[in-house]
Amino acid sequence: MSVYTKVSPEELSAWLEHYSIGALVELQGIAAGIENTNYFVTTTQGRYVLTLFERLRRDELPFYLNLMAHLARRGVPCPAPIADRDNALLGTLNGKPATLVTRLSGTPVPDPDASQVSQVGAMLAAMHLAAMSYDGTLENPRGLRWQRETAPQVMPFLDTPKRDLLASEIAFQSAQRFEILPRGPVHADLFRDNVLFEGAPGSQRIGGIIDFYFAGIDSFLFDIAVTVNDWCVDASGEIEPRRAGALLAAYQATRALTPGERAAWPAMLRAAALRFWMSRLYDFYLPRPGELTHAHDPEHFRRVLELRRANARTLA
Amino acid sequence: MSVYTKVSPEELSAWLEHYSIGALVELQGIAAGIENTNYFVTTTQGRYVLTLFERLRRDELPFYLNLMAHLARRGVPCPAPIADRDNALLGTLNGKPATLVTRLSGTPVPDPDASQVSQVGAMLAAMHLAAMSYDGTLENPRGLRWQRETAPQVMPFLDTPKRDLLASEIAFQSAQRFEILPRGPVHADLFRDNVLFEGAPGSQRIGGIIDFYFAGIDSFLFDIAVTVNDWCVDASGEIEPRRAGALLAAYQATRALTPGERAAWPAMLRAAALRFWMSRLYDFYLPRPGELTHAHDPEHFRRVLELRRANARTLA
Repeated sequence: MSVYTKVSPEELSAWLEHYSIGALVELQGIAAGIENTNYFVTTTQGRYVLTLFERLRRDELPFYLNLMAHLARRGVPCPAPIADRDNALLGTLNGKPATLVTRLSGTPVPDPDASQVSQVGAMLAAMHLAAMSYDGTLENPRGLRWQRETAPQVMPFLDTPKRDLLASEIAFQSAQRFEILPRGPVHADLFRDNVLFEGAPGSQRIGGIIDFYFAGIDSFLFDIAVTVNDWCVDASGEIEPRRAGALLAAYQATRALTPGERAAWPAMLRAAALRFWMSRLYDFYLPRPGELTHAHDPEHFRRVLELRRANARTLA
Repeated sequence: MSVYTKVSPEELSAWLEHYSIGALVELQGIAAGIENTNYFVTTTQGRYVLTLFERLRRDELPFYLNLMAHLARRGVPCPAPIADRDNALLGTLNGKPATLVTRLSGTPVPDPDASQVSQVGAMLAAMHLAAMSYDGTLENPRGLRWQRETAPQVMPFLDTPKRDLLASEIAFQSAQRFEILPRGPVHADLFRDNVLFEGAPGSQRIGGIIDFYFAGIDSFLFDIAVTVNDWCVDASGEIEPRRAGALLAAYQATRALTPGERAAWPAMLRAAALRFWMSRLYDFYLPRPGELTHAHDPEHFRRVLELRRANARTLA
């Protein structure tokens, strides 16, 4: 259970006086999510999600909230932050930075088919185009800089082959010149559990994209690689060409990749695998209090990284 | 059929290139609406309404679109205009000013019960509070000034009792001092067909408030009176105390009426009846080309006005 900060109906009702969304009908904690405290909030006027931020710094939050507002205003089905009567998207509840966003419809699809990954590819491209005009400037907080700084902290927990793998891949990534690729605000965490589908089986449609709290400025290709590494793989982590092809074709129907992006693709798939292996090692060996039960097994992304390295050698 | 301006799927697909909402799936004309051309637009990314403006002046449109964006940002379930890639809410399609807005769920309720009118009252109050911080300045385009200017044009069509009624009521309203009442952006046309309800019978909830194209700055009490004159009346136009009481109680749970507003209530019910009698006379006797089939019978609001005048005499 990830409700770190308790909020009572009485406390929330008082807080809702700052808003124009009606009176509280129901308040329900959400177990998912390891970074924030989330509640479903139903008022007489609609359905919302309340988030209390447990990890992110208050000065970073406007980047995320304004990005969501920017995308929602352009028709991207992401959570739209609700402004209070003073036009603020961010407030304080029970001592924590807190925000209300619209609640989107649908549920994640654990085993997506080619039609669903196509929709994800098209949506990702539309989101990138819509995000280009956003002027926020927060770098991807889990980018290569963070990875390089954090690697020494996890090295002592690893055996020699893993240490060598980590050192080798960080050296490889440090030699890349991804900064020449098209850049902008990216989601950076578009795993299967962050896309909601709605509708009857066979005619399902994306109802929403959620959890923008790992977003930052990075290359669009990085966002695609994170997405392919999760949506288009088999149980072993190997890429399934049919689904990967469907996602990339749908993406490119909206935004064609540049020659530089095509050339960087094998290295970027490695970068996206490294990023999650690194953060999962960190969360696994150096957990914050209360977080342990949610730590993902780092091994999955080590295997993904090994596979992408082998694949890049084959292509070379 | 009120599709004045034809739009083909090919024309719309080309226009959608300016937006980040995916590719066109379906385009369907909407018969309702006498002022604009409306289409339902389904893209790979969601459901929208396309409006081409046939009556309103281009320089007035930002007031309406920015008001809807302002309210949507504050959690009011109204159509949210979609910004294009240049951040514009208003474009041009086939020579007409045009906009895309989100499509809301639900259908109008022709015979509302006390629970539904309560929800409308609560929503109206929330909308007024949310609108207070909006800085647009367009006066209600069908306010008393317009009524006074238009009355001489319809007088020649009326018999003597109706002429006397119209002249008498305009004189009465001109003597009121409504400008001292709390004011702000108001919907000004919140009839039953402009509120969508969704959900199973018995647990229906407002899914959306639509058609803001008669909005303007006016007294909040005028907006309430327009709403009560439609939602809380029997077939004869007489107010049903139970439903009117439910709507006003729900409104006041969010924003209590001032003593000045309470005192002005009987006169404001007359003003709201006069406004629609006047505009329906105008549309009936002086229709624009192509509009005749939609003109409402002016007689209903003449009867409503007579009833409110009689009622005000009883109260006095």
